[in-house]
Amino acid sequence: MSADKRPLRVGLIGFGCVGQGFYDIVQQLPAAAIDVARIVVKSPSKPRSLPPSRFEFDADALLADPSLDVLIEVIDDAAEAFRLVSGALRQGRRVVTANKAMLARHLPALRELERTHGGALLYEAAVAGSIPILRTLDGYFGAEPLRAVSGIINGSSNYVLTRMAEDGSDYAQALAEAQARGFAETDPTLDMAAFDPRSKAVLLAAHAFGLALNPDEILNLGIENITPRDLAHAEVRGLKIKVVAHLERLADGRVGAVVLPRFVGPSSPLFTVEHETNGVLIEAAFGGPQFLRGKGAGGHPTGSAVLADVAALRAGYRYGYAKTPSESDSAPALATDLELEVYLRHEDEHLPRQLGLRDLSAEQRGAGRRFSVGYVRLDALRERRDELRAAGAFVAATGASRVAAVQREALAPSLAL
Amino acid sequence: MSADKRPLRVGLIGFGCVGQGFYDIVQQLPAAAIDVARIVVKSPSKPRSLPPSRFEFDADALLADPSLDVLIEVIDDAAEAFRLVSGALRQGRRVVTANKAMLARHLPALRELERTHGGALLYEAAVAGSIPILRTLDGYFGAEPLRAVSGIINGSSNYVLTRMAEDGSDYAQALAEAQARGFAETDPTLDMAAFDPRSKAVLLAAHAFGLALNPDEILNLGIENITPRDLAHAEVRGLKIKVVAHLERLADGRVGAVVLPRFVGPSSPLFTVEHETNGVLIEAAFGGPQFLRGKGAGGHPTGSAVLADVAALRAGYRYGYAKTPSESDSAPALATDLELEVYLRHEDEHLPRQLGLRDLSAEQRGAGRRFSVGYVRLDALRERRDELRAAGAFVAATGASRVAAVQREALAPSLAL
Repeated sequence: MSADKRPLRVGLIGFGCVGQGFYDIVQQLPAAAIDVARIVVKSPSKPRSLPPSRFEFDADALLADPSLDVLIEVIDDAAEAFRLVSGALRQGRRVVTANKAMLARHLPALRELERTHGGALLYEAAVAGSIPILRTLDGYFGAEPLRAVSGIINGSSNYVLTRMAEDGSDYAQALAEAQARGFAETDPTLDMAAFDPRSKAVLLAAHAFGLALNPDEILNLGIENITPRDLAHAEVRGLKIKVVAHLERLADGRVGAVVLPRFVGPSSPLFTVEHETNGVLIEAAFGGPQFLRGKGAGGHPTGSAVLADVAALRAGYRYGYAKTPSESDSAPALATDLELEVYLRHEDEHLPRQLGLRDLSAEQRGAGRRFSVGYVRLDALRERRDELRAAGAFVAATGASRVAAVQREALAPSLAL
Repeated sequence: MSADKRPLRVGLIGFGCVGQGFYDIVQQLPAAAIDVARIVVKSPSKPRSLPPSRFEFDADALLADPSLDVLIEVIDDAAEAFRLVSGALRQGRRVVTANKAMLARHLPALRELERTHGGALLYEAAVAGSIPILRTLDGYFGAEPLRAVSGIINGSSNYVLTRMAEDGSDYAQALAEAQARGFAETDPTLDMAAFDPRSKAVLLAAHAFGLALNPDEILNLGIENITPRDLAHAEVRGLKIKVVAHLERLADGRVGAVVLPRFVGPSSPLFTVEHETNGVLIEAAFGGPQFLRGKGAGGHPTGSAVLADVAALRAGYRYGYAKTPSESDSAPALATDLELEVYLRHEDEHLPRQLGLRDLSAEQRGAGRRFSVGYVRLDALRERRDELRAAGAFVAATGASRVAAVQREALAPSLAL
């Protein structure tokens, strides 16, 4: 791992799926390159795979221990995670985190602390599990303008969609199965309502486009209301439904960003991304399309990304944030005046009109039909997101995951993502 | 690209497909981050896209110019490339090369020069065009043991195979088309007889397994003798034929390495890697399977990889060669006592016996049949490679591109790759 043969002393805060996965990997590494010196957990009583003597309960004690070369924060609680990570960075420490919800809210502040105090913060495990997507965007594509980044970056909802499509099971069954396999949180809203991939999209936007977004600015629609009928609608057309985070630079230099279910055809590399696998497509200005696929959930795949970050910190690596505009450049703006072509399945006949949906499929209307296909303004969907959820409606983008494929002259200057 | 706003002064040696692609990209970058200060070419008379005043003819003059921050070597001539790159490293310079044939022969010597004189050598463009495969293996997977790396890493032969399968054109037609599009060398042997992907496999072996191989140690079989009949044999079985470089760590710690045509089924991510696209599958011990796909040929995709290396050199990046065994560890050995399950199409009825092929398909023998399927020892194929080529025979591995899938108890201790 380095010419320096002393094992790296690591302090591990959190011993859930990711923490335990990382610990387990380190025990199996051929050389004693990493020493997990101290492990902090929250609950003293929870049964664990290691003897109780391995655990302690005060994370601040790890921050106060200068013998630890790297601190790894892999707890659930975003507020506490921010307190710990920012505290460590204030000391100029080297830190790894996997907490996308925390990062999505606090990235600018954490970057400022990293700069000011000379520490380093890596978080590859926060996006797309084992896929080295942040490093690829930040390092490899740092000098090259990107056109688009889109992908399946939530393993839990993709697992549910795959299981529903495989054997026609309904949403509740598939979700229970995902939870039993450890792919979904106990409160499934974060994953299923696409709050989790929205946080990840904030991180992708920072590294791919130099855009500092607040997660609330990005439209997120999920699959909590999906039914076998929606999947059948896709299947008879040779399509699948996938939750896709999509970021794209528009012709005017602004960036569009949405996270929502999408009909995906076999010509898309996302078509074969199944179960808890994640896949990300990068459209580089000169390199062309790049596709990366790997496991997006699970202790070992995510622990593997933490390991890569720990090794990178040892080698002196930090994110370059090469796309972040310097003070003299103007930051790219988020485009909000967009239209999406969507499939809207609903129980309320007034909903399409309330959304301002310009229906493309009136001629198909019939007694048994409860869906519309048409154009909706992005901001209308954002404003009525919670209403749509409450009304049991399901929305999916019908266009391909590229602006160019669905852009229509007639709609200029707004674009369909 | 960096906080340092002074443009990086680059000396470009070679203005063929890659050199011109890189130059073209730099001209289109938004900021003046890179200044291609001097360009050396070989022939003064060749018509070029830039005025003659932009070119000079003495590469040594660039090595003697200390104002150049980075030297880029993208010429064809491997001997001259080695002379220039080693000369630059001997001065402790930062160098980018795309010359895989040169690197495959001289990597240990170049690494030694890099270490001794404090320079840096990057060569992402040498393998799989625009795909950041070396960086991903070297950096991201540097701390994690890998089980296998396999992929389509020659765009020209993949283009020929795709075109033959698409419209039944024969080899000569498809090759002429690849050459017309600039995907194949004028002397097609390097690409079509799989010498080029063999060189790349040497580089993959160094970064993925810490293995220092001589290219001649790796079996390479190509597609110069492929016929529409071979493709039809694949097609009726729902398979495609792809030239796959395959490296795999065996259970005993040794590494197997072969480059040859392979029957690939739709469950493999390589199945949809078409035309000049490349695709690489990494099997990580903990991260699981990772797949990367992108353009493998063409001036812009390859120039994009050179750009990424130049930016990385500016940021202080160097390969870590983390898998290279230290002096106290023993280097992994190349496994040569392997058996492959192959399809052998031939005109000479004695060939299977001469190869020692243990036929699995005798019952299918008939008047119109001119192929055998069976096990052949790897070393028999290596020794008779040129004979097979001369005899017009075509060989393709029939197993999946993973040892596990074709390993047979009965053959222990040899394994089928």
